[in-house]
Amino acid sequence: MKCKVCKGAAVVQVPRHNANFCPLHYKEHIHYQVERVIKSYRMFSKKDRILLGVSGGKDSMVLWNVLRELGYSVQTVHINVRQGDYFEKSEAVVRKFAEETGADLKVYRFRDIFGFEFESALKFSRKPVCSLCGTLKRHAFNRLAKGLNCDVCATAHNLDDETALLLGNVLHWQMGYLRRQSPVLEAETGMVKKVKPAVRITDREMKDYADLFSIGYVDEKCPYSRGATTHFYKDILNRLEDQYPGTKTYFYFKFIKDLKPSLKEASEDTGDVNHCVRCGCKTLQDGKCFVCALADRIKMSAAGQEAVDP
Amino acid sequence: MKCKVCKGAAVVQVPRHNANFCPLHYKEHIHYQVERVIKSYRMFSKKDRILLGVSGGKDSMVLWNVLRELGYSVQTVHINVRQGDYFEKSEAVVRKFAEETGADLKVYRFRDIFGFEFESALKFSRKPVCSLCGTLKRHAFNRLAKGLNCDVCATAHNLDDETALLLGNVLHWQMGYLRRQSPVLEAETGMVKKVKPAVRITDREMKDYADLFSIGYVDEKCPYSRGATTHFYKDILNRLEDQYPGTKTYFYFKFIKDLKPSLKEASEDTGDVNHCVRCGCKTLQDGKCFVCALADRIKMSAAGQEAVDP
Repeated sequence: MKCKVCKGAAVVQVPRHNANFCPLHYKEHIHYQVERVIKSYRMFSKKDRILLGVSGGKDSMVLWNVLRELGYSVQTVHINVRQGDYFEKSEAVVRKFAEETGADLKVYRFRDIFGFEFESALKFSRKPVCSLCGTLKRHAFNRLAKGLNCDVCATAHNLDDETALLLGNVLHWQMGYLRRQSPVLEAETGMVKKVKPAVRITDREMKDYADLFSIGYVDEKCPYSRGATTHFYKDILNRLEDQYPGTKTYFYFKFIKDLKPSLKEASEDTGDVNHCVRCGCKTLQDGKCFVCALADRIKMSAAGQEAVDP
Repeated sequence: MKCKVCKGAAVVQVPRHNANFCPLHYKEHIHYQVERVIKSYRMFSKKDRILLGVSGGKDSMVLWNVLRELGYSVQTVHINVRQGDYFEKSEAVVRKFAEETGADLKVYRFRDIFGFEFESALKFSRKPVCSLCGTLKRHAFNRLAKGLNCDVCATAHNLDDETALLLGNVLHWQMGYLRRQSPVLEAETGMVKKVKPAVRITDREMKDYADLFSIGYVDEKCPYSRGATTHFYKDILNRLEDQYPGTKTYFYFKFIKDLKPSLKEASEDTGDVNHCVRCGCKTLQDGKCFVCALADRIKMSAAGQEAVDP
């Protein structure tokens, strides 16, 4: 097995690019894939300050490493969501990498940001756990980016994440989500610009990079995500990709190029957009956004509980 | 296992409708599904003359039977495409049903309609076999419908056929095909109205109906369709349906209801449409349509051959 570039001994296979690579040129390949998407979608430049949310999983650890190597100015934040082994391990992995590299990392407990525990949010919101965690983290990153003077908020969603999301949105024709799914969401009132620089790289390619360059990461899935639909959609897309290599890339990037521009604007795109009266976030609701309304419900319930308790 | 309607002994399970049926009420259920789609999409009425293309497979044999039972005026046509066992069996099945029921059936050899053999079309078109067969049959049904004074041309595409087609169109974002995929295509200059009255019924439900009411059909797939992408997409959709019952119906009918109306008109929808100078069919090409141009190529080649042959 020879490296496509230098013909030296290859250690990684990338079938969908019909290529094998030695360590050096695999690094170059991944760097190129990230740079390509950053430039194509005008995500950010070397002058920008980038807030990167890192969970401790392979994707965020690799992207963190790549953005540093490429010379971008990264402010990393980690949110420790819940109690338990998985969450403690994740925090430790993230802290270790920051110490080893001297990177700028801020770690928060969930309660530090929201003023309540994730368990309470779960009880009062009645949302599925993955969906709730995602919504709250997005909200937190937006708030933190503003507070930490960052120009843009990056997450490490990869090609498998994005195509699984797209497949779910397509199977249910979620028109609102389809209109918004993109590698880049421009800044608007109350909202920091959001970008996904790892969107050209698959799960497998991320893992290969982490293993090859000994980047520490938590190799388990979040224990609360068992049975998540996303895992099922990823399996389906892997079957399609095995049969027809290139399916994922084509499905995702042709969606961005051809389907999105073909969609008529929806009334919610052209009508008045609401902003949360408390935090200023964009929201579809009148008054407070989902997160601020949830915080109020939890606070009121706790106050009622104290009044009733002897 | 009890019939959902009469509580008598059920013989058929329909998990996606969360129902079991006795023979009588399964017939009623299928009749209702066909009538529902005919009425919702204003496909045709009892006054219309319907051309139905029948291949001899379960879908067309069941739809033929159901439309007759519902009292519609059906002119059935069968095209015997190629030489071989499968095609002879198919013709025999169709002829037998027509004899038993006294139905109006016209049988054509491929050459009778086109003036050349399917093998020549395959050689000169360089299209994949299933795609070519489909294109030529659609063309033939349109021509036959006009010649036989039919108001509408029906085919027996079922929910599995349509969702497999939709999945393929979505994975490749075939915008032109997405704009046209529909249970009904209205008549336009040169083109007879086209409808798919079986689009609410799955492969499995069609087979159950045929078996239960002893409707003869050819139980093999066309030998030339082996390895067709459609079979693979149907497997994928069956996996999705098993995990999340109702996925197929939702995916297809919400596409018709929500995605299609959200699409901007394409330039080809609003620009000048061409019509074949020979047969009058709608075509994207200048001059002759694909089929008439193909016929010319085959004729010219045969003439050249004769001129050269001693």
